[in-house]
Amino acid sequence: MLQPSDRAPGLLLGEGVELPGDAQVGAYVVVHAGTVLGAGCTLQDHAVVGKPPALGPRSTASREPPPPARIGEGATVAAGAIVNAGADIGEGAVVGDQAQVRERSRVGARAVVGRGSQVDNDVVVGAGCRIQSGCYVTAYSVLEDDVFLGPGVFTYNDNTMARHEPDYQIVGPTIRRAARVGGAVRILPGIEIGEEAFVATGAVVTRDVPARTVVMGIPARKVGDVSDEELIEKWS
Amino acid sequence: MLQPSDRAPGLLLGEGVELPGDAQVGAYVVVHAGTVLGAGCTLQDHAVVGKPPALGPRSTASREPPPPARIGEGATVAAGAIVNAGADIGEGAVVGDQAQVRERSRVGARAVVGRGSQVDNDVVVGAGCRIQSGCYVTAYSVLEDDVFLGPGVFTYNDNTMARHEPDYQIVGPTIRRAARVGGAVRILPGIEIGEEAFVATGAVVTRDVPARTVVMGIPARKVGDVSDEELIEKWS
Amino acid sequence: MLQPSDRAPGLLLGEGVELPGDAQVGAYVVVHAGTVLGAGCTLQDHAVVGKPPALGPRSTASREPPPPARIGEGATVAAGAIVNAGADIGEGAVVGDQAQVRERSRVGARAVVGRGSQVDNDVVVGAGCRIQSGCYVTAYSVLEDDVFLGPGVFTYNDNTMARHEPDYQIVGPTIRRAARVGGAVRILPGIEIGEEAFVATGAVVTRDVPARTVVMGIPARKVGDVSDEELIEKWS
Repeated sequence: MLQPSDRAPGLLLGEGVELPGDAQVGAYVVVHAGTVLGAGCTLQDHAVVGKPPALGPRSTASREPPPPARIGEGATVAAGAIVNAGADIGEGAVVGDQAQVRERSRVGARAVVGRGSQVDNDVVVGAGCRIQSGCYVTAYSVLEDDVFLGPGVFTYNDNTMARHEPDYQIVGPTIRRAARVGGAVRILPGIEIGEEAFVATGAVVTRDVPARTVVMGIPARKVGDVSDEELIEKWS
Repeated sequence: MLQPSDRAPGLLLGEGVELPGDAQVGAYVVVHAGTVLGAGCTLQDHAVVGKPPALGPRSTASREPPPPARIGEGATVAAGAIVNAGADIGEGAVVGDQAQVRERSRVGARAVVGRGSQVDNDVVVGAGCRIQSGCYVTAYSVLEDDVFLGPGVFTYNDNTMARHEPDYQIVGPTIRRAARVGGAVRILPGIEIGEEAFVATGAVVTRDVPARTVVMGIPARKVGDVSDEELIEKWS
Repeated sequence: MLQPSDRAPGLLLGEGVELPGDAQVGAYVVVHAGTVLGAGCTLQDHAVVGKPPALGPRSTASREPPPPARIGEGATVAAGAIVNAGADIGEGAVVGDQAQVRERSRVGARAVVGRGSQVDNDVVVGAGCRIQSGCYVTAYSVLEDDVFLGPGVFTYNDNTMARHEPDYQIVGPTIRRAARVGGAVRILPGIEIGEEAFVATGAVVTRDVPARTVVMGIPARKVGDVSDEELIEKWS
């Protein structure tokens, strides 16, 4: 059962939750049973951590109860954001206002999940990734370290739209280290975007993008290469 | 006036609301006056049910106070989701995390409104529909049973962008039984998408799509037919 | 510190906040220190006003603590909406359900920020603007009076995707008086859209659009002119 705590107005803590002495907690925050909270974490107003998933009757997500959530040291769950049970938020990472990270997904250290964005179930988001506002990272996606997604990027994992055999393997995109994906780009199921690639705003990516390649358009086609001067080493 | 209930932490119930004995209720849930809650319903943390609309000064939505909301047996209103007064959520349906269903809209039995999606006012969503994450179903749309909308589908209802006579009839799309609409598809006002049609990811639909037709592109053009093997009867 | 108020269930008011006698306040509303609330304002369930930003480690937004928020007379902050510290919401304006307005942004009188939309930091939204559902108005955008953005419009401000010198000036679009921008349109950094221009649904705007010009497509190209009969003077 959730129990009130006097550490913040309206704070409710589930069984076994220990609130670090230096945690910063807003109003009406709900932390479900078993959640592990790192030192110096911030939970803003109306944040919900460790909630069970609400699966549709034909969702492909696992129905096994996920383990507790973990919020890393110095990480932030911003106002109105939801971190499901079974999610793991890395050190210093930020789950933005009104965003959500679902069960069994991992957000790496110092990564940002932008305002209103969703990291769906069973996703890996690498360290230092920057997911801007309004993105949808579909189930079973992999983002390696330092990937940048501009505002409104959407990714997909099922070309059949739910008409497939039970053993059909839905597969999200894989986006390699330090790739940059522009705003409103849509990435089809199973696509791989190479290291340090650059996908221009508004593109629809229907084929793999090799490393350090610049693509644009619908469907996305190669228009150039990423120069040495643009590599992430110069900018971080 | 909203009154506290000891059935769940921070639960507030409006006048005349009866909470079924087997309802599952999270924290800080608000249920407004007159709402009818079905047996076995689930209301997750911070869900709001039966709230009055917040209309802009020139909104075309009716200003008549809507009737109470109804949540069907076994339906779920997930965390941070909002169901307006006058909405009707069918048996076993799911209104996903941070999603919204507006006044005078009806969501059919076992349908799912995905995370963060909006069903605007005066919409019909048929039984078994699956609206994935981040969709916008515009006012006066009709979705027949078993329609699938991929993540990020947006629909429209007013080609004039609000410059029209008061009696101008804004009209959303009609999507027929078991049609599949891919991710990030945009559907223009008044368009009809036929039964068992298939619209590929990223298309912009500017003309009606006949039944069992496969379309893709911007604007969407026919590229094939849906085979007997793909029909929903095989998969449900 | 936030203090409970008996004016509404679960209402919390920060230091120095005075709630007008005729304010309409829902449940679990949080108003942070110093916020100025206008007469006749409406704050719906779970609204948060005046919260501090949650910046990512490499966000370009200013780290100086913003001033308090201001909510104008008769303005509405709808259910689950967030207005950051340093935002200014004009008289009679509506911040829709689950929407957000960030620090140092100004929303003009009678403007509407649609459900789930985000007005990012340092934006100017003119009087009478109508931002529909699911839009993203990027940092440093300027919308003059009476601009219309259809559902799902996204705007951009950084062509480098965060690889630039510290003194690089990121710049959002400027949208002139009474321009109409259709649903799902994407507007690239620094673009100017002229007075009374019309951008058709789904366009990607890569070049400036002159006043009273109709553009469509990807990239957007001129296809006509806005007639005298369509000008906003006829319709407001």
